[in-house]
Amino acid sequence: MSHDIKILTEAELRQVVGLDIETVDVIEQAFTALASGEVVMPPILSMDLPAANGEVDVKTAYIPGFDGFAIKVSPGFFDNPKLGLPSLNGLMILFSAKTGLVQALFLDNGYLTDIRTAAAGAVAARHLAPEVVETAGVIGTGVQARLQMKAAHLVRPFSKLLVWGRDAAKAQTCADDLAADLGIEVQPVADASELVSLSQLVVTTTPAREPVVKAEWLHKGLHITAMGSDQEGKNEIDPRALALADLYVADRVSQTEILGELRSAKQAGLWAHGIPAELGNVITGDAPGRRSDEDITIADLTGTGAQDTAIASHVFAMIRDSKAGTVISA
Amino acid sequence: MSHDIKILTEAELRQVVGLDIETVDVIEQAFTALASGEVVMPPILSMDLPAANGEVDVKTAYIPGFDGFAIKVSPGFFDNPKLGLPSLNGLMILFSAKTGLVQALFLDNGYLTDIRTAAAGAVAARHLAPEVVETAGVIGTGVQARLQMKAAHLVRPFSKLLVWGRDAAKAQTCADDLAADLGIEVQPVADASELVSLSQLVVTTTPAREPVVKAEWLHKGLHITAMGSDQEGKNEIDPRALALADLYVADRVSQTEILGELRSAKQAGLWAHGIPAELGNVITGDAPGRRSDEDITIADLTGTGAQDTAIASHVFAMIRDSKAGTVISA
Repeated sequence: MSHDIKILTEAELRQVVGLDIETVDVIEQAFTALASGEVVMPPILSMDLPAANGEVDVKTAYIPGFDGFAIKVSPGFFDNPKLGLPSLNGLMILFSAKTGLVQALFLDNGYLTDIRTAAAGAVAARHLAPEVVETAGVIGTGVQARLQMKAAHLVRPFSKLLVWGRDAAKAQTCADDLAADLGIEVQPVADASELVSLSQLVVTTTPAREPVVKAEWLHKGLHITAMGSDQEGKNEIDPRALALADLYVADRVSQTEILGELRSAKQAGLWAHGIPAELGNVITGDAPGRRSDEDITIADLTGTGAQDTAIASHVFAMIRDSKAGTVISA
Repeated sequence: MSHDIKILTEAELRQVVGLDIETVDVIEQAFTALASGEVVMPPILSMDLPAANGEVDVKTAYIPGFDGFAIKVSPGFFDNPKLGLPSLNGLMILFSAKTGLVQALFLDNGYLTDIRTAAAGAVAARHLAPEVVETAGVIGTGVQARLQMKAAHLVRPFSKLLVWGRDAAKAQTCADDLAADLGIEVQPVADASELVSLSQLVVTTTPAREPVVKAEWLHKGLHITAMGSDQEGKNEIDPRALALADLYVADRVSQTEILGELRSAKQAGLWAHGIPAELGNVITGDAPGRRSDEDITIADLTGTGAQDTAIASHVFAMIRDSKAGTVISA
């Protein structure tokens, strides 16, 4: 009665899947499926481990038509850097959606999450940013700052990129890395307001608890994707900006109203537009998107289990008949 | 930055851990910890996959003082038998409670759950059944019927055992298996009321949605452990029996009032005893247990994440320095 389970490590996964247009398309399918209303996506299971300054989240989603569903476990232990370990870790488990049997274990230490998160940024940019983006800006200087810009560049091949972070040295390193990766001009800027004013596409990638983008910085023809807030208490965008924008789009309203920018706007009493659109509805055309190059649009991404199921299924389709990884009969 | 992860299959786990008094003691510790109020145990994550007649549950718990915490994923796909596959499957993942790094993957197909569930039955019998049990009875004829009786026999070495199930042939097979296992007299009976009237300890192990034990069958000196109900809609014990018993004890009230026998009693308007005791409080002496050999007691077990963390930690302690299983550096 035993069956084969494929096990891939982070190093093996990095050889199989990267951030390319195919991955962006796979994640776009997840949002389209979410819009259909047939996805089953339970609330995130979340547990605090206060003694270790840690937390763990579990996400899952069943997407009709997909052969499997993923369960993703994401621990975050914020004292790890003192031990020389990364704060974020975790794995994805892919199950057959027909039998519930484990098909694959992806010991990715968060790599697949990084990829699917950046790909969601590209999906938002593809459907919400102005058709032509000459200058993009990224706020934050970490792994997602880099990946978000690589992903955005796939769908909006901007020729100039600005980087802002609280730490000027880190902003310089991030700019240098991105210039090498993208082969374009990348400059750190001293002032986030300057970055926003010069960009048509801005992505915020910080764990900020006070807004890093002010409402008075908004200008015609701007799209902002805020992907940093994924917890109560985080907030990157001035709540007034959500009220002022021509369009606000959530990855999943039931999440952004608790974990995202929408929470702060509602809490401030500044949200008066009813139930906002979700990214999937904009993709399918069921909800209006950007109406002109002058619109100001904001996308609020908290990360969905549907993206995990989509990326894990994509990886499994690529490796199921290959020799990649280890096979255990269990 | 990679670290070693131990991976054990069901076959390997069966060689490492079984249902013995050590396992019962480990599970008792989990209940004692639950009683301390310091355990962090989020609500169960549950997802339906209606297209496949499937469901998946995720349980976890952090127990202060334990080096690790388990996340358990339990898929149940009820059309699997038509495909020659078991309905229940799943795995446990053990994480470091200090760093969140994955320590071990137990590809147990539900084996560790079976063991920790039966061990909880033994803990309930140890603390709630009359000191002397001559005759025990089990209602149901599946895997848990067998394991619950093996576990109960460790703490109450009864000399006679009765088995009842809806299918007489299955009851006979279960009785034969248990007679061989325990080396005592085991008889199938035609009537569940006869089984209850002749037993001092009864365990119900069915997925019943209508009570299989009637209130009028209760008699002095009886202990019943109901372990079958773990979902809304399941019900093994007549709600009136909970009202009539001298003592009702939950594994976890926040679960039994939604998933266990307590739910049915409350729904029927028959529960008037306030907040019931939990098994851990009876173990520590913070809540009264059985007062005399004449008391009628009922334990309601729905299964807790704390048990999963306890059994997974126990297994890891036994294998971490052994050559058991496969090691992957991830």
